[in-house]
Amino acid sequence: MKDYLCEDTIAAISTPIGKGAIGIVRISGRKALEILKEIYRTKSGKKKEEFEDRKMTYGVVVDDKGKEIDEVLAVYMKAPKTFTGEDVVEIHSHGGTVVVRKILREVLKRGARLAEPGEFTMRAFVHGRIDLLQAEAINDLINATNEMSAQVAVNQLEGKLSQKIKKIRDKLLELKAFVEVGVDFPEEEVEIMESAQVKEKLNEIKRQIENLLKSYKDGKILKEGIKVAIVGRPNVGKSSLLNAILNEERAIVTEIPGTTRDVIEESVTFHGLPLRLIDTAGIREAEDVVEKIGIERSLKSIENADVVLFVIDGSQELTEEDRKLVEKLKNRGNVIVVINKKDAGLKVSCKDVKDFKACVEISAKTGEGLEKLAETIGRIVMFEPEREIGSDEAVISNERQKQLLEKALESVNKVLNTLEGGYESPEFLSIDIDEALKYLGELIGEVTTEDMLDIIFSRFCIGK
Amino acid sequence: MKDYLCEDTIAAISTPIGKGAIGIVRISGRKALEILKEIYRTKSGKKKEEFEDRKMTYGVVVDDKGKEIDEVLAVYMKAPKTFTGEDVVEIHSHGGTVVVRKILREVLKRGARLAEPGEFTMRAFVHGRIDLLQAEAINDLINATNEMSAQVAVNQLEGKLSQKIKKIRDKLLELKAFVEVGVDFPEEEVEIMESAQVKEKLNEIKRQIENLLKSYKDGKILKEGIKVAIVGRPNVGKSSLLNAILNEERAIVTEIPGTTRDVIEESVTFHGLPLRLIDTAGIREAEDVVEKIGIERSLKSIENADVVLFVIDGSQELTEEDRKLVEKLKNRGNVIVVINKKDAGLKVSCKDVKDFKACVEISAKTGEGLEKLAETIGRIVMFEPEREIGSDEAVISNERQKQLLEKALESVNKVLNTLEGGYESPEFLSIDIDEALKYLGELIGEVTTEDMLDIIFSRFCIGK
Repeated sequence: MKDYLCEDTIAAISTPIGKGAIGIVRISGRKALEILKEIYRTKSGKKKEEFEDRKMTYGVVVDDKGKEIDEVLAVYMKAPKTFTGEDVVEIHSHGGTVVVRKILREVLKRGARLAEPGEFTMRAFVHGRIDLLQAEAINDLINATNEMSAQVAVNQLEGKLSQKIKKIRDKLLELKAFVEVGVDFPEEEVEIMESAQVKEKLNEIKRQIENLLKSYKDGKILKEGIKVAIVGRPNVGKSSLLNAILNEERAIVTEIPGTTRDVIEESVTFHGLPLRLIDTAGIREAEDVVEKIGIERSLKSIENADVVLFVIDGSQELTEEDRKLVEKLKNRGNVIVVINKKDAGLKVSCKDVKDFKACVEISAKTGEGLEKLAETIGRIVMFEPEREIGSDEAVISNERQKQLLEKALESVNKVLNTLEGGYESPEFLSIDIDEALKYLGELIGEVTTEDMLDIIFSRFCIGK
Repeated sequence: MKDYLCEDTIAAISTPIGKGAIGIVRISGRKALEILKEIYRTKSGKKKEEFEDRKMTYGVVVDDKGKEIDEVLAVYMKAPKTFTGEDVVEIHSHGGTVVVRKILREVLKRGARLAEPGEFTMRAFVHGRIDLLQAEAINDLINATNEMSAQVAVNQLEGKLSQKIKKIRDKLLELKAFVEVGVDFPEEEVEIMESAQVKEKLNEIKRQIENLLKSYKDGKILKEGIKVAIVGRPNVGKSSLLNAILNEERAIVTEIPGTTRDVIEESVTFHGLPLRLIDTAGIREAEDVVEKIGIERSLKSIENADVVLFVIDGSQELTEEDRKLVEKLKNRGNVIVVINKKDAGLKVSCKDVKDFKACVEISAKTGEGLEKLAETIGRIVMFEPEREIGSDEAVISNERQKQLLEKALESVNKVLNTLEGGYESPEFLSIDIDEALKYLGELIGEVTTEDMLDIIFSRFCIGK
């Protein structure tokens, strides 16, 4: 990804690889239209010289021997009001891997170069169509595994995070101007330094950065989901619980039968919580066969879980197996005891299992207690779904953003310390404020390095 | 798929499931435009009342609470000149599973129904936009694993097979009219029956049907590829041969790094032959470790191969292991001995290994002999790539087509037998000709049953 001047015309397949009804080859750059004209023919086999902006036209794509590759819908979108800010052409063919690849090959033969991952988005950034946070949001959106992380990405794409960062930056710039009066007119220095107003403003900036930083944990959870493992001896209702949790989402999932399993597998939204359920189906069998080893193994496989649901059949007395699991699990901090089969009458209650952080009595069958279970999971991972989803709040969603904000915060703290520590030359204050500004600029992408851009955009899929 | 009246408005995700730059939700039916208007807003948040035919417009999709789901490009295509013959709307959003599904859900909420597999194509068929053979071609195209099968599908989609069938049918119709003169004017009966012209015409029709039937084998090979297993003792150059065969294709494959492996894995086009290479990498190791069992296993795993390439290192004398493999393989009819390492000078030549149907001396290193190897593979499976690819010939590509053609042939043969057997009432001839016509009509889809359509279209992916 060295072409920051955007001189090449780039092309790529922009639909996911696989079988589907429609496949798209996208071309961006100054040769896009020219290439389209070379490979496109009307259904009667004629070349087409005029392509109306944004109008889809039906025709065929031919190879260099004039042989038809496929029927297509083609559309030319004129710069600069396009995704990349350049001339963009899209060729929509039948899906499937072969035809789309053949069309791509013809496009490459006519002078386009295969786009690097994220290169379309990078061009959108280079041409000022989006800022860096919005570019990152696009990648987050494509990779979203649940609706909330998608919503966070859409908010970021809409510019909510950028606006917040820009507001902080504007306040810093104002402050800087204020401080620099002291540089230019040193006689007023003392007065400015003592100004409670400056400190107040700095503290306000500090608070805002800190709040954004706090949102990172939530952003991370939204992005990755809360890893939840369901364990328990056989026949306590682990599968029923799994189904009960999946229930709400399954209705949606079945809209696309047979496909979801491959892609997001066990990611569900459960009463507002983005869960990533760890399948422990195999573990149960292992318990049956090689008992102790099996349990060890199940514990090992759930080691990385954020939350463990330890399911007990409450309609029976605790068994030896249950007690063994209690022993194994009681030293973990993130276990929720789930006493199931409340509908059948409970012989075991939360009072009987006191070694754990939390306990919920439920009926997977009737759904009783499931909402409380969700609340409890949320409490254990300190995640407040309502706040996030309801308020459209800006959320920090990756390590880069977090690190830059931390650095900005550090610089702001330096300024504050300087002020607290007594009088110092305003030049120093100005330097620290500049540093904070630099980090915020990097965050939005107003200050960039090619290395940084390479790293960010190489995470994208090809075609975006 | 009961809605043959096409009264519902249907919708589905038309791009493959997975991560990609662009995802498309497609809507077809009378409510398509209305639904678009309900969920689409301009970037400034306004409803849009006028959608110009085929023009892509940039805006956002909102849910029923007015919350933005994603930025989109939307396009409305006015009936009847659309894929389905109905009003069609496409909503292009960012790829990834979540956003596309959310948009689909909104569309379904506003009165569309989720499309069944193949239902868009079925509507195209019902509205006379395509015939049944073209509908099947679309599915073949999406599922094509190599360029030739894609080409065959495109030919069929262009109507080449349909035209051929229609020509045969027209000839039959002509003949029928001819014969029916006999029914209406019985006094002329004898004359017509004896007419050499009738027989000649029938034989011509028979030949054409037979030729089409012969193409089925090629069609099947094109569709599935020739299954080729590469075997041999360790270090004879199996992997080098594999790489040499893959070489041409790999250059293309690497255009989309990391993705092809999942999809078409070891399907390659090798000097015009569509090969499906069976990976025998594991087998080699099994030979090393548990020798005899390993060989047995390797033989078992290649039992279904159309062709076995038995690779020998020609730069050394034959080893005991080679001889064991000779014993194991010599009773198979489809083994090609490949004497490798010609570049290093051959101590073993084709004269030394005479138990097999064919033998080729090659150098996987320099590429010498590879073209001849391809020819030899083609000869063994009786596949003539040049004819298929060069001539745009129509090819029968599935069992349904084959069976209907066989039935049509049977009916034609009945007519011929009747004629050969002597004079019989022209009514009987007419009935058999009608039967042949019926089968050809079913082939194109002019005569259909709902059951038949259900079977055909249920093989499609959703969204097509």
